[in-house]
Amino acid sequence: MAQNNYYSQENHGPYQLFSLGDFQLEDGETIGNCNIAYSTFGALNANKDNTILIPTWYSGTSKIMEQVYLGKGRAIDPANYFIVIVNQIGNGLSASPSNTSGPWKGAKFPRVKIGDDVRAQHRLLTEHFGIETLALVMGGSMGAQQTWEWAVRYPDMVKRAAPIAGRARATSHNFLFIETLMYSLTGDPAWNDGNYVESGAVHRGLCHHADLWSVMGYSTKFFEREMYRNIGFSTLEDFRSGFMQNYFLPMDPNNLLCMARKWQQGDVSNLTNGDLASALGRIRAKVFVICIDEDRVCPPSDCEVDQKLTPDSELKVVQSQAGHLALFGLDPAYLEQVDDYLGELLTLPLQDKTGNPELIKGGLTESDLVGA
Amino acid sequence: MAQNNYYSQENHGPYQLFSLGDFQLEDGETIGNCNIAYSTFGALNANKDNTILIPTWYSGTSKIMEQVYLGKGRAIDPANYFIVIVNQIGNGLSASPSNTSGPWKGAKFPRVKIGDDVRAQHRLLTEHFGIETLALVMGGSMGAQQTWEWAVRYPDMVKRAAPIAGRARATSHNFLFIETLMYSLTGDPAWNDGNYVESGAVHRGLCHHADLWSVMGYSTKFFEREMYRNIGFSTLEDFRSGFMQNYFLPMDPNNLLCMARKWQQGDVSNLTNGDLASALGRIRAKVFVICIDEDRVCPPSDCEVDQKLTPDSELKVVQSQAGHLALFGLDPAYLEQVDDYLGELLTLPLQDKTGNPELIKGGLTESDLVGA
Repeated sequence: MAQNNYYSQENHGPYQLFSLGDFQLEDGETIGNCNIAYSTFGALNANKDNTILIPTWYSGTSKIMEQVYLGKGRAIDPANYFIVIVNQIGNGLSASPSNTSGPWKGAKFPRVKIGDDVRAQHRLLTEHFGIETLALVMGGSMGAQQTWEWAVRYPDMVKRAAPIAGRARATSHNFLFIETLMYSLTGDPAWNDGNYVESGAVHRGLCHHADLWSVMGYSTKFFEREMYRNIGFSTLEDFRSGFMQNYFLPMDPNNLLCMARKWQQGDVSNLTNGDLASALGRIRAKVFVICIDEDRVCPPSDCEVDQKLTPDSELKVVQSQAGHLALFGLDPAYLEQVDDYLGELLTLPLQDKTGNPELIKGGLTESDLVGA
Repeated sequence: MAQNNYYSQENHGPYQLFSLGDFQLEDGETIGNCNIAYSTFGALNANKDNTILIPTWYSGTSKIMEQVYLGKGRAIDPANYFIVIVNQIGNGLSASPSNTSGPWKGAKFPRVKIGDDVRAQHRLLTEHFGIETLALVMGGSMGAQQTWEWAVRYPDMVKRAAPIAGRARATSHNFLFIETLMYSLTGDPAWNDGNYVESGAVHRGLCHHADLWSVMGYSTKFFEREMYRNIGFSTLEDFRSGFMQNYFLPMDPNNLLCMARKWQQGDVSNLTNGDLASALGRIRAKVFVICIDEDRVCPPSDCEVDQKLTPDSELKVVQSQAGHLALFGLDPAYLEQVDDYLGELLTLPLQDKTGNPELIKGGLTESDLVGA
């Protein structure tokens, strides 16, 4: 299989690698010589309590998180925080089907879960940086899944959390949408059980994949009002091929499939024998559950289910006609509102929750936690 | 190609056929010996002014319209009205790729437009039944497209119109969704440019097609609250395969493609050189633009665009967590509200609009009408 040059330092860097060695996954398989790719911005303070962790969403890398969410004078400002943007396993920068050699490469890459990412990220932060406190974990969509997992799995470490447009447990509707995404790739005649000649051979499937995202990723108002003009595309077809298809076409289909499966299985209640209320009841962070009013992937009514089960939380609704992919930063109104919410969250005084964790955790003890 | 027995009198009848002879289409091609399939209920009165016309939606036939929308004591009651349910071209009962022989069969079936259906239906009503007045035209989704076309093309004939969850002009978002539906079929390795051995050979594409409808056809609340249990499916997978895939699997892919292309091109402003306001300004019917609050295919904000351009119209919003496919009648709350709206519309006294049609039509004369 030809090398895919899309996932390069030129396109997505600079990024560093942290080696986990042989990393055992929750489902039992092992990724040999597993690397996690990350980028940092700003400086860690002496107390090591000014870290903001940002995991990535489906198909995204640390680069877009940096470009869209970080900036001088913004809520997430490298002048004030030590910001670690960490690439999820399978995204092409961290260990992925496209960059793994030997028996785990390509279609043979093991099944990964959100919990695997969070355990790997925990090792990066604690072993490499010596960090035991996170001022904030935030992320969108699959980044929100990782944020939820962080807050549930390591409740004493996460002081604030802002999952944006993503669920603590993937919904049935998420499941079906992801099924169509996966079939767009595996149904391509060039798929060949994942052993395609090169990723570009699956170009028809990748274009269909992009079209599925165009349909679900935006609101109908986005198209009715031709909001794609705001980002430089003059016609629907320009936007469809020049933005959406052009975005997905260079990606590796096995990478996308690895992330899609992970998304589909995302469920913090894996830690509490399927009891979502118990899982979310463990959270000790102050949580802003941020959702987007016109989101068709994770609408506010869905996100509210998680928020209501989370002790010290508020539902914050962003108004954006862009829909789910407002996450990409293509609507300035979205960015302004998200910055306001994140700024508010970061300046909120934290309650002392060290006194009686059992009460906050609903009586759940560490030994009740499955697989932690 | 093997005969497809799905589109039979046993499954979808009883229905009758009306022959148009060789029927020339708007795009210039001709369907030889073109038949329109229809079912009637109730009796035409002496004044011939008690007719309700109901065209069909994408993939639907007259049978489901009868089963879901007609009934004793309901708004559309055969005791009070002469009801004509007419099958759209390409749906497998009227002239379609699956039932046409000779040079027009299968993949060679000509491109059909909404206007062709409405012209064919007009001939059925006027030539066969001698009907010059329609008490109501109503339909959902593509049936709404035909309803809009009827009201614009034959404004003196249509006294009331109720387009439900469908646009007078297909939107950009409709276009993209339909692109994904079409590719689900044409991207199947068994498609063979539409010359598949039998329709079942495209079963993977048909299942993907069904999944796309599952994702877009319902609201996320429908799944979050497991509303499929109300219609007898105990799990998501039951519903997905037992209801949605089972529904589409026996259909002919060329038939679906014929309807999909027609949907995508649906646009009443074809009659007025692309000016939607002029087209809708021609309407002299009393119009209830009915939409469904959780509809993801044609949400209320989209339907309102048409309503605001239609002179004597009201926007009527149905509350249903089923979403677009509430049209199927699987939510009793939807049926009750739609019946109320239709009942109200049917009993509203009609204004005399024969006095000064130019004012109502915004000064547009018959000679301004393109292709009428």
